This record gives sequence, structure tokens and C-alpha cells, in this order.
Amino acid sequence: MASAPPMRRTSSGQFPLLREHALVPVGMATILPAAARHVRHLEAELLTHFHRFGYDEIILPTFEYLDVLMPGLEPTLLENSYKIVDRTTGRILLLRPDVTAQIARTVAMGMVGTRFPLRLSYRATVFRYEPEHAGRDREIFQVGAELIGADDPSADSEIIMLLIECLRQVGLRSFKISLGHVGFFKGLLIRAGLSSEGQKRAEQAAARKDVPRLGEILSHERVTKRSAHRILEALELCGQAEVLSKGRILAKGERPLLQALDRLANVYRLLCETGFQEAVLLDLGEFRGFDYYDGIVFDVFTDGIGVELGGGGRYDHLIGRFGRNLPSTGFALNVDRLFRALNLSDRTKSVGPEVLAVGPLGLSTRLVSVAQQLRQAGIRTVQRIVDSSRQDLIGVAVKAGLEAEIDTIIVVGTDSPTPEQVVVIHKGDRKRVARSIGHAHVHKRTVSIADLIASLRADLEGTI
Amino acid sequence: MASAPPMRRTSSGQFPLLREHALVPVGMATILPAAARHVRHLEAELLTHFHRFGYDEIILPTFEYLDVLMPGLEPTLLENSYKIVDRTTGRILLLRPDVTAQIARTVAMGMVGTRFPLRLSYRATVFRYEPEHAGRDREIFQVGAELIGADDPSADSEIIMLLIECLRQVGLRSFKISLGHVGFFKGLLIRAGLSSEGQKRAEQAAARKDVPRLGEILSHERVTKRSAHRILEALELCGQAEVLSKGRILAKGERPLLQALDRLANVYRLLCETGFQEAVLLDLGEFRGFDYYDGIVFDVFTDGIGVELGGGGRYDHLIGRFGRNLPSTGFALNVDRLFRALNLSDRTKSVGPEVLAVGPLGLSTRLVSVAQQLRQAGIRTVQRIVDSSRQDLIGVAVKAGLEAEIDTIIVVGTDSPTPEQVVVIHKGDRKRVARSIGHAHVHKRTVSIADLIASLRADLEGTI
Repeated sequence: MASAPPMRRTSSGQFPLLREHALVPVGMATILPAAARHVRHLEAELLTHFHRFGYDEIILPTFEYLDVLMPGLEPTLLENSYKIVDRTTGRILLLRPDVTAQIARTVAMGMVGTRFPLRLSYRATVFRYEPEHAGRDREIFQVGAELIGADDPSADSEIIMLLIECLRQVGLRSFKISLGHVGFFKGLLIRAGLSSEGQKRAEQAAARKDVPRLGEILSHERVTKRSAHRILEALELCGQAEVLSKGRILAKGERPLLQALDRLANVYRLLCETGFQEAVLLDLGEFRGFDYYDGIVFDVFTDGIGVELGGGGRYDHLIGRFGRNLPSTGFALNVDRLFRALNLSDRTKSVGPEVLAVGPLGLSTRLVSVAQQLRQAGIRTVQRIVDSSRQDLIGVAVKAGLEAEIDTIIVVGTDSPTPEQVVVIHKGDRKRVARSIGHAHVHKRTVSIADLIASLRADLEGTI
Repeated sequence: MASAPPMRRTSSGQFPLLREHALVPVGMATILPAAARHVRHLEAELLTHFHRFGYDEIILPTFEYLDVLMPGLEPTLLENSYKIVDRTTGRILLLRPDVTAQIARTVAMGMVGTRFPLRLSYRATVFRYEPEHAGRDREIFQVGAELIGADDPSADSEIIMLLIECLRQVGLRSFKISLGHVGFFKGLLIRAGLSSEGQKRAEQAAARKDVPRLGEILSHERVTKRSAHRILEALELCGQAEVLSKGRILAKGERPLLQALDRLANVYRLLCETGFQEAVLLDLGEFRGFDYYDGIVFDVFTDGIGVELGGGGRYDHLIGRFGRNLPSTGFALNVDRLFRALNLSDRTKSVGPEVLAVGPLGLSTRLVSVAQQLRQAGIRTVQRIVDSSRQDLIGVAVKAGLEAEIDTIIVVGTDSPTPEQVVVIHKGDRKRVARSIGHAHVHKRTVSIADLIASLRADLEGTI
């Protein structure tokens, strides 16, 4: 539901190759190991929290038939989707531009069982054309959750609690959920008598919080000054409970507007009572960019990221478009943006102790056995069989360790009185060793494999 | 590098919707929660083992520019790729049909650092058109590993050990790595004087082990009877060390063939010495379907799955096609096929104890607090705020528990002498309770939240 700037923008200028055009498509992410470790950990953590709340992961196809998914997609999204003519059937395939529509299609087809409410989660990539100058990504990593077949305010509040809890659990310090109800703003527009085309345009401007543009549209639609004033005022009504009272004044007793406010008040009260008030901001102008939302809607914002990290809301009629009416709500988070908000790229994710195990060709049996024992104990072990005489083994091992930047080097098959022992060269010794390479004497110590594992396990537990 | 039949083939016939055509593209996977749990767990386990061996995950873009990736793809694969004209640049985008070529491109561009050997791993989806009657998937989940910048036999053996260890760790009982060297078979074809076109066709037939077809090609190419006999014999030379001696006879003293056999013998010896002999089968006709392999190659087979689970080999010149020569080796596993080989779909993956926490609207604060405590303790907890009077709360809770098929139901806010207590209805009681719904008396007990958590934690530890 959200789109992201690339985590790492790669264009020809950044690489030492003389090409006239980009080598990697713009807006597509290459995530290198240091960042990938964080991204995968973040994804897994989020899915674990979803699971704790009772949400089960589903994996959906990357492609959908255009004609099948179309009822769930609004025209703009459809226009910005990647399409391929299927060679086999001649039908048009769509690379999924949105997961919620796909889940709606899947649930309506009865594929995910018939017991409701249904709690589903996903991690998926969605694909959208984005204007390049917008600096947005075209391949977007999302994780999300959907609560399907529940229409009461506690369902709305559950999905928002889930979102807040997950963000807190992954360590996001300060963020706000901007909470609204599309029915309120839509109601104001309808009351002002906009044309359906004008209303659509006004909603789009509202979703972007583009006040000048909204003003233009209202004036073009010949909305009365007083109505226009109320609409523009509503767009900026943002805060705590007082927002609801101000909204009631703008509603001027009209039922659809009051009903929207009542629902919003109920959900807000539930969130306040359960300790989530601090994270929530009421926003009567909150308006998500997807036309399937028809009730409570919300976005997540945090400092330093100029766009929403994600958002969601209630879609009571989306699944119905695929043939089965089921009131539902859900949200999606943009993993790239969350990754940036958490400043994870600045942190080195510890991989725990790491060992380079070196041994000569003639002792590969022992070397591999030692490496296996270390790995079984949970210690990351790079093995290196070298085709060298036993005399210069230490020198070769130290050089390999320096190249690989591994802190602990163990050497099998030199000066070990027993086969249960190995020679260990530790980080602290490494620089000294590096200086003395070429000399006959280097600092090293001999330990038993059992002691080595015990001490590395202690390091490992220290890093968890 | 491998393609898979769909885990769940979904076509119109399987769904209660009257449509004339399929609703989900054929060959695309929808993986429902029960299976998704296994698939994600399997993926994560494999990546953890890769990590233990020193392999770091990289995440690559789904799209590549055709002109950029083309040097790494052979014509057939290129023909079977999904292509899109990029709206922004007018260039042709390719949905990646192979990850190894992508990694080669990325490494050649200097994006992944300059310290070698480089150990990379990935989990990715690749996309290929497959003839529908072949029953293969078009969206293929892969995990794989690449060892880049190392050309000695110990590198070949390391990547094969990694493959074997991973398969053992995820619980695959009996499997065989069929191990060969493309240089041997290629050498025989070259010596027999085939045309380059004929050689290509012969290699394709060999990769499919299509003996009759290979015979036809050899006869069409006017290969002498004796040469043809040797080639066909080589294709079926399969077993332990004796295969190498037989190969030496077929080599008739020719250097390229003997060099291939020497390399194969070295790698085989290393694998035998380090305890992997049981999993390996020498196969002089082993010939992977990708033209970038130019040394040791291998496939994994297991009973009950008629195609390989995955495979790989040495590609010393692939990265060079992108401008930087780096001898390398690697493999990929087809996750769907491995999933089927492990018979995971028959097993229910335990999710640990699961709780449905029910409470009335007026006590939502307490309910959410109890649910939070349970989740913090690692217990999956579905929360349910009900808008009912406290009198029928037990009935409502039991009904909700039956619907959700959750074993343990806890109720907040009824008959609890203190706020630290909840009412618990356990699985054993559920049927009895079900019968007595509507009656005034149901079996229930009151426990403190601390005791509840302690007993559920004990269950949780029992399932890990």
C-alpha cells in the first residue's frame, strides 16, 4: 500500500564501468549483505509479532490475471502496473501492484477456508511504475496484516494495536498513527454538491494534503464559500479528542457525517483505554490513496521520513467486488522505509563470533570435523583447506584471516600434541601477528576443541 | 537453477466459481498458511546453515535490463524469460530467470566488495515460461549459495559439503549428489569431431539423459561408431571410484579429458575423506542444463521426486562475461521440490500453545493488558472484545473458541475475585462445555495470570 525510495539507488555513475545508461533498473533495490541481514531480521520479527497476535502468513503468486484482479484495483494503480501478455494463454498478466486486492480475491474464492474472522499476514514485493523524479521505488517490500470478516470497532482497534505494538517491538522510538474516517470527508464533499469527477479529484488532493489544489478544485466546482471553508478546515483538523467536537460542529447534524465521527470516537476511545493514546493522532482529513477504503483509515509517520511508513484501514466492500461480502480491515508497512526510520543501515548487526578454520590438504578430515563441531555449536565457521606444507601453515592462516577480516583463526594440524587440540590465534593477537609474519616466531596458543567451543559459546551468548 | 511444479495448482475447476478460464495463472503458487509456515521455516533454516558456513545473504532486484544481463543467459533461457518494455526508458526489462547470472553481474560491477573468496547466499523467486504440459512452475522459489573467487578443488568440495550438510540439517533422509565434470563429456564430443551446432544439441540431450536422442544426433553428425559408442557409454557411467578408472580408459590418454577426471578425482577424494562419500555418486554423464558451467557439476536427487531438487557447479568464466574474471562455484535448491521431498505438507507444524482471550467492551483495558502479557511471554494470543453483558460472556467466549478452533480460552471480567485472575476453559473441557452451552452451569476454573503464563510457557517449551 505504500511505495518507497530505493534503499540503494544504483545507476551507472556509481560504478567504475563506462556505460552510457544505467546497468540496474532505476528504483529497484540491491540490498548488500550488511543491510540484507537487518532487512531479513526486521521482516522475520514483524511476522513473528503478527503470529503472536494470531495472524497467519499466506504466500500469494507474483502474477495475477488483469481481468480477474481488476475489480480490486483503482484506475490509477492499474495504469501504473507492469503488464505482460501471457504467451501461453494470450491473456494479460499483472505483476501484483497491491497485496490487499490479491488477498480479497483469494478469500472471495473460498481458498482460505470459511471460518471468520480470518487473520492473515504476508511479506511480499509489489511492483508499480513511479515517475522517476519522485525518487520512489518501483519494487516495494511490504509486510502486512488483514483482519477479515469482522466489522466492529474492536476489530478496527485490534489492527491498529497490532501495528503500534509491532513498531514498538522492532524498536521504532517515536511515531504517530494518524487516524481518520473516510466517511467524514467524503460526506462533506457530497454535501457540498461536487460532481463525481470533481469529488474524485478532491479526494486525491486530500490524500496528498494538497490544500491549494483542493481549494482550486472546490472553486472550479462552484462550491459555496462556506462549504469550501468547512472542507478545507476539516482537512487540517488534527489532534486529540477536541477534534471530534470540532468535527461535530462541521457535521451540522448530518447523519452520515455523525456516524463516521461516532465510529471514529469509539475506536479512539478503545485505543485510549488500552494504553495506545500516545501513539495516536486524530486527523479528520486523513484520506488514504486507495479507493477501496470505506471506514476507519490510518497512516504511520515518524520523524525524518517525509512519507508515511505504511498505513491501512477498513475495506468493507472490496472482497464483495470479487463476489463475497466480508467487512475487513488491515494495513501494510513499507519495509525499506521502516528500515531507514530505524537507522539500521548505520548499525553493524553482530553475527556473533566467527571463526576461520584452516588446515592442510592432508588433514582435511580433521579440519572438516572441527568445523562441523563448531557449527553444530552455533558458531559461524568459514573453512579453508590449504595446499601448503605444515611449516608455513600459520603464516598462510594468518594471511587468510586478515584478508577475510575474521577475528578468530584456528589452525588444525600444526604443533598440536593431540588430535583434540587446535592452535588458536585471536583478534587481539592479530595485529602483532601481522607485523611478525615472515618471522619465525608468532604468538599462538594451543587449546582443546571442547574448551574452544565453550569459550566461543560464551561469546555467542554475550551477543544475543 | 531448477524449476518446480506448483505446490498448489489452482485452476478454475477447483473453485466453486463458474468461470470459463483459470482465475489464477497456471504454474503460479498460492501457499496457504499451513504450508506457508513450513516453507518460511525451511527457507530460514537453509539460510541459517548457509550463514554458519560463512555465506552472507544478498537481495537482488527482481528486474534486470535485458541488454545488461544477456551475456549471462543462454538463448533458451532468454527465450523463456518474461520481458517488459520499460515505460520510463524504453529499454527491455527482464524478470530474472536465474540468480547466478545476476550475482555474476553484481560482483563484476564491484558492488559486493573486493575481498575474495566471497561467500554469498540468497532466497529469491525466478520466473520462466514453461510448457504447460510439462507440469512445471513458472514462479520458482530458490535458495542458493555462491563461492566466488576460489578455484581449487577444496572450493568445489566446500560448496558440495554445504549442500549435503544443509539437506541433512533440514531432515532430508536419503538423497544422492550426482557429481561429474562437464569437461569430460565435452572433451569426448570435441574429439568425435561434432559440428558446434551438433555439439550444442548433443549437450542438451545429455543434460536430459536422453540416450536415443543423443544416438540420433551422433549418427546425424556422422560420428564413427566407435566414438559414438564411447560417448553413449560415458553418459551412463555412474557409481563410485571405479567410474574414474573406466573414464580413464575412454579418455585414451587425451589431456583435456584426463584433466577433467583428475579434478573430479580430487574433489571426490576430499568428499570421501571428510565423511560425505555416502551422499555422492560419480556420474560422467552429469551435465547441467546451463551453458555457463565449465568444471565440476552436480545435481541432487531423492526418492519420490522425479526431477532434481537442485544442483550447481563451477562457472569460471561467467563473471568474466560481465568484465571481470573470477573462478566460482555455487548451487541452488528448489524450495517447492524440497518441501515436497520432506513431505512437510502432511505434517501440521505446531504453533505452540494458542490462547483466545475474551473480554467485554467495558473491560478492554484489562483484556488488552492480559493479552500483552501473554504475547510478551511468547504465547500466541488472539484477542476478542465482545459487546455483551457479563452474564453470557462465558457462552460467547466458548462459541468464539469453538469457531476459531483454539484450545485454550481465557475470559477476563467474570467471576474473578481479583483483577489478577482470569477464567480458563481448556481443550479437554471444550466439548463438555459445547454440550452445556445454554445451560447455566459450565465447567471453568479461575487462575492467576502469573500461573496461567507459567503453565502455558511449560507447554511452549514442550513444543520447541
